Amino acid sequence: MSDAENRPSPHKVVIVGGGFGGLYAAKALSRAPVEVTLVDKRNFHLFQPLLYQVATGGLSPGDISSPLRAVLSGSRNVKVLMDEVTDIDSEQRQVTLRNQTLKYDSLIVATGVSHHYFGNDAWENVAPGLKTVEDALEMRRRIFMAFEAAEKEPDPEKRRAWLTFVVVGGGPTGVELAGALAELAHTTLKHDFRNIDTTEARIFLLEGLDRVLPPYPPELSAEAEKSLTQLGVTVQTRTLVTNIDDNVVTMKQGDRTEQIQSRTILWAAGVKASAMGKVLAERAGAELDRVGRVIVESDLSVPGHPNIFVVGDLAHFAHQGDKPLPGVAPVAMQQGSYIAKLIKQRLEGQTVPAFQYSDGGSLAVIGRNAAVANLGKLKFAGLPAWLIWIFVHIYYLVEFDNKLIVMTQWAWSYFTKNRGARLITGEDDELLGEITTASALPDKSVVNV
Amino acid sequence: MSDAENRPSPHKVVIVGGGFGGLYAAKALSRAPVEVTLVDKRNFHLFQPLLYQVATGGLSPGDISSPLRAVLSGSRNVKVLMDEVTDIDSEQRQVTLRNQTLKYDSLIVATGVSHHYFGNDAWENVAPGLKTVEDALEMRRRIFMAFEAAEKEPDPEKRRAWLTFVVVGGGPTGVELAGALAELAHTTLKHDFRNIDTTEARIFLLEGLDRVLPPYPPELSAEAEKSLTQLGVTVQTRTLVTNIDDNVVTMKQGDRTEQIQSRTILWAAGVKASAMGKVLAERAGAELDRVGRVIVESDLSVPGHPNIFVVGDLAHFAHQGDKPLPGVAPVAMQQGSYIAKLIKQRLEGQTVPAFQYSDGGSLAVIGRNAAVANLGKLKFAGLPAWLIWIFVHIYYLVEFDNKLIVMTQWAWSYFTKNRGARLITGEDDELLGEITTASALPDKSVVNV
Repeated sequence: MSDAENRPSPHKVVIVGGGFGGLYAAKALSRAPVEVTLVDKRNFHLFQPLLYQVATGGLSPGDISSPLRAVLSGSRNVKVLMDEVTDIDSEQRQVTLRNQTLKYDSLIVATGVSHHYFGNDAWENVAPGLKTVEDALEMRRRIFMAFEAAEKEPDPEKRRAWLTFVVVGGGPTGVELAGALAELAHTTLKHDFRNIDTTEARIFLLEGLDRVLPPYPPELSAEAEKSLTQLGVTVQTRTLVTNIDDNVVTMKQGDRTEQIQSRTILWAAGVKASAMGKVLAERAGAELDRVGRVIVESDLSVPGHPNIFVVGDLAHFAHQGDKPLPGVAPVAMQQGSYIAKLIKQRLEGQTVPAFQYSDGGSLAVIGRNAAVANLGKLKFAGLPAWLIWIFVHIYYLVEFDNKLIVMTQWAWSYFTKNRGARLITGEDDELLGEITTASALPDKSVVNV
Repeated sequence: MSDAENRPSPHKVVIVGGGFGGLYAAKALSRAPVEVTLVDKRNFHLFQPLLYQVATGGLSPGDISSPLRAVLSGSRNVKVLMDEVTDIDSEQRQVTLRNQTLKYDSLIVATGVSHHYFGNDAWENVAPGLKTVEDALEMRRRIFMAFEAAEKEPDPEKRRAWLTFVVVGGGPTGVELAGALAELAHTTLKHDFRNIDTTEARIFLLEGLDRVLPPYPPELSAEAEKSLTQLGVTVQTRTLVTNIDDNVVTMKQGDRTEQIQSRTILWAAGVKASAMGKVLAERAGAELDRVGRVIVESDLSVPGHPNIFVVGDLAHFAHQGDKPLPGVAPVAMQQGSYIAKLIKQRLEGQTVPAFQYSDGGSLAVIGRNAAVANLGKLKFAGLPAWLIWIFVHIYYLVEFDNKLIVMTQWAWSYFTKNRGARLITGEDDELLGEITTASALPDKSVVNV
């Protein structure tokens, strides 16, 4: 027997998903004696925390994306495969892709979450969410088309509907979107139109709970609401959206029902687990929570399957009986690195203690100079929080050239209040066709709020 | 009578198209006592000379676009209208848009050209051209998908077809595309794949005439061909494409017929006038040349219509019996500014001499450090030409923040040989579906060249 035949084949790790969780696991495994295959439907890692900047014309998709192959080109034991996992066979230890099957010894599932319309899937067309580059470009198209349509609309009521923007959901994404929209309308676009006054645009931020940024301490929520109001956002808390139809948002505040006529409704309210959650439930007996996330063990494995792990937004991790960890990038990064360490230790016959999240704090940005930061004992708002926010976000952008470019963009737009990436893309006919038909707003009598 | 009623209404200028010709006319008219309306189907000005960089993943669309409203926001007498001109009435002096009609006293038509497949319109789907942002993103998608598909393809012959790129047309766009593709395959992507060797990719540049860059002096064409060959491009001159079908390019070199099996065929060969040429022929009796361009007077007006002007690529200007001016940005810029001056002078009762093109020279880039420059008596190639090319292109980028960003991108990619904007966008199913079906290549027996 030759040496090659004698040698056991290396431990095979399959990672599904190239977001923060999957990418950090792959990077941390790059010097280990394992064979890694990272499967993603897309050929790039997306820096989702800045996606709202693409939606509002501040950055280009290329600025917040890094080709997965480029990020991992130095990791010679890591293969990137642009494909989709459709099934898992936990007995045979293999995953089915569109074009092939892959054997694994350890499987890491990191496919994240998508929008959730609470059973009202019809709302998706009128109120798009923000998870992918395509989502962001669609939002951008709608936002800038609304101003173009308003500029051409002679009827004052219809023009008002074009200049009314509703953001549903007061979490970080909703707050950031509403803040950016307000800056856009009240500052950036101020001198760009001749028939409309963009500062008359109304931006509503609707939140079901009693305050924006519910996961933050109440004093920071209050700071955020104050900043949003100063920027010109109408914040409505304790407000439940009951219907979205014909460009009218119907909402309930206690017993009161109100309606807003708006041509641009953006969804930042709910998420649900990606399809892999269901596959894990069916194929590996995983238990799912209310939104479909996989409830994992203290080492992030699926109960009964010590070699299948779930990390990032798809994982419901609540080891000490606490509420699950939030779906944010730092959790996913730490979980990805943790699993890499666990796999390496296991190969050496060692064990690792349960996963422990080290909370570095949280940040949300509201606009130029305005942000809130919750760094454990330190809670602050305003310019210092904004500077930390920028620093942290640029620091974590994966590729160095992206950091340089995003920093240049930011410095420039800070001083000029400009946003360059405002191009409306798509098919010509679709674009101009929309404006043509859009002047036919529904004739419903609605209460304007 | 009040003063306002007494005052004659200002001279109305309608500009159709916000490319170099239209934008420069609008900017030059911004302090004149005229009322300008700039109509464009898109909301941004596109810096077309760098579009090939978007197609090859070097830049993002936002980097080479400037919102028309932002560029013209300080020109208070200029209105921007996102709409399409569908008809002209030269008697009533008005243009019909999709949603309204506009009166004009002077009309400037600057709608440019689109691809031309010499009567083979079916080739458009297999061999996309490069005129719009969407074109560039489609090329980018095809180029990067080809490498992804090759990485997965077990059949060596099919893999070879995925790694074969054919650029049809050896003008500046074709030369720039072929050069960028060669750099991409032989340098940038070198370490990114595990199953394929991207340096085995073949890039063909096909040109019907006897040399690449036919409008340049022969010695520069020779320099360009040498640089392309060094980069790994197979240049085939005196080569006519006779058919493109089932991913096979059939071509004729003299009496010899040859075929190349390729999954990625890019069109940089011919242009035809945009639809406005035909409208001007029908509505204003304009005479068109072979490719549909409007033959204009020495002051760029349409014969018999001293107040209708055509500028830029759509104009066939050959006042002194020479061949028409080439369709390049400097011609369009100078023509736009010329018409602005003519209109201003006319309002003061003065005339201007015939339009005269001041040829500042031409440049084409082949790759890192490699370019050719023809500045009148000065003709040179290599690094100095490349540096001038970069300087000129960045200098003419309309917005300052774009200059800053493109410069940063360039400096970075120069030192790292990286290209960050490689993301493949579009609908997931479409993307992965393509790979699935693409392995079914036609079984034709072709001669591999």
